[in-house]
Amino acid sequence: MNTISGLPSSIGGILKPVTRIQSVYTPTRKNPSSESMATSGGPKWAQKTITLPPLQRGCHLVTPKIMKEIGQDLSGFNCGLAHFFLQHTSASLTINENYDPDVREDTETFLNSVVPEGRSAPWKHTLEGPDDMPAHIKSSMFGNNLTIPITNGKFNMGTWQGIWLCEHRDYPTARKVVVTLNGI
Amino acid sequence: MNTISGLPSSIGGILKPVTRIQSVYTPTRKNPSSESMATSGGPKWAQKTITLPPLQRGCHLVTPKIMKEIGQDLSGFNCGLAHFFLQHTSASLTINENYDPDVREDTETFLNSVVPEGRSAPWKHTLEGPDDMPAHIKSSMFGNNLTIPITNGKFNMGTWQGIWLCEHRDYPTARKVVVTLNGI
Amino acid sequence: MNTISGLPSSIGGILKPVTRIQSVYTPTRKNPSSESMATSGGPKWAQKTITLPPLQRGCHLVTPKIMKEIGQDLSGFNCGLAHFFLQHTSASLTINENYDPDVREDTETFLNSVVPEGRSAPWKHTLEGPDDMPAHIKSSMFGNNLTIPITNGKFNMGTWQGIWLCEHRDYPTARKVVVTLNGI
Repeated sequence: MNTISGLPSSIGGILKPVTRIQSVYTPTRKNPSSESMATSGGPKWAQKTITLPPLQRGCHLVTPKIMKEIGQDLSGFNCGLAHFFLQHTSASLTINENYDPDVREDTETFLNSVVPEGRSAPWKHTLEGPDDMPAHIKSSMFGNNLTIPITNGKFNMGTWQGIWLCEHRDYPTARKVVVTLNGI
Repeated sequence: MNTISGLPSSIGGILKPVTRIQSVYTPTRKNPSSESMATSGGPKWAQKTITLPPLQRGCHLVTPKIMKEIGQDLSGFNCGLAHFFLQHTSASLTINENYDPDVREDTETFLNSVVPEGRSAPWKHTLEGPDDMPAHIKSSMFGNNLTIPITNGKFNMGTWQGIWLCEHRDYPTARKVVVTLNGI
Repeated sequence: MNTISGLPSSIGGILKPVTRIQSVYTPTRKNPSSESMATSGGPKWAQKTITLPPLQRGCHLVTPKIMKEIGQDLSGFNCGLAHFFLQHTSASLTINENYDPDVREDTETFLNSVVPEGRSAPWKHTLEGPDDMPAHIKSSMFGNNLTIPITNGKFNMGTWQGIWLCEHRDYPTARKVVVTLNGI
């Protein structure tokens, strides 16, 4: 695999003029002056492992917990992407409704009805308890990683969207998430 | 969280020589001269919110609609990633077959059979109609965000792949997608 | 869509001082000197299409195969993201348990039980065989693309995590994955 450096290079190439447009299209922009700040820094990367506290089996809205950990870092990006990677195989991260707790409870009801558990389940992998194999399956159904756009220092999500951590094990444990921010 | 600027820095570090290889490995490259254009610009970011028109409940191939909105922007990236984030919790974005409409219809059939709706459903969240809670579940099953590689100014997808918007509500509404392009 | 170059620009803007902090927070860092190497190169992009050999229907741990192809490239990134895009609609990529093969077998059992196949299936799309339509559905359930954080030249996954290729067709075929690395 060859690697292209992101910086301008004149090695063997005919350089075309670089067009730099300084504004990003963002329908909800409120602070136009933030642009020059962002473009002055060049592309930035930030990475951090955060720990979410033990949560009961079920789906949980964790946007506030995540914002508490990375809100200040987010504010340094005018335009970019925030990537979240859960370092576990028996829980999941997903985007869903942020308002009515019943939506989270119903989603847990669905997961438990679609993935058999206990006596009715055909699993061979049972050494870690009856809830373990169903947890692995649910983790791949909903996924363990998410990418959210950043615009003007904030997540650019819809009004009713939030980040859910779905805990699929019976016994609550702390869960680690590697957060990677990239942008300008 | 600390932030590393992507630009060269000599603060306290011993700078090693920078190797800049000007070609990216792409098996289908057709326009070798496009490389120098791309590397001359440095890393670029572009972000835009596009609106997909109201579509009936079911799975829809939206690659042409998306290309119409961002095709010209894509052409400015030699190598990069295109990220799509649907700002809704009752629809989903997924990659699947781009040819036979029966595949999309069968997928809708599957979704409706695996997620109970109406009298047989155990949901507590029913205020927004019998199709709402199933829509939220389907949204997390298929996901609301996607990342597609860009190579030589185009999506680097397989021959039979396309972008689907799956509308899970009965009443069609316009759907917003935040598109973020990043690359060189 | 407007494009912001990632490089500093003074076109019409008031440039603020650039703060460059040279360390990235990584709890497991073992080689502090690797930072200056990374920051000296600026943002880098690398892209390659790798081919995974034909695998039987079922879930397979492919981390070793992928590392053999891109391990050396990964080592050049101190902080970044690795994106994987499977160019097919009848297989999937997911993160799950890397140890007990029973977990992979049980997951295949689940997929086959939740998506009807053969006489009991309601599919209209049957021309390519009874396993084809179920394969498309499973592909969207588990997804065809993944992003994994890179820290100090390695995947920053949990101890028990690995990359799975799930082959959903009966007849094994080679599968192509576009790998895109981006970071510093």
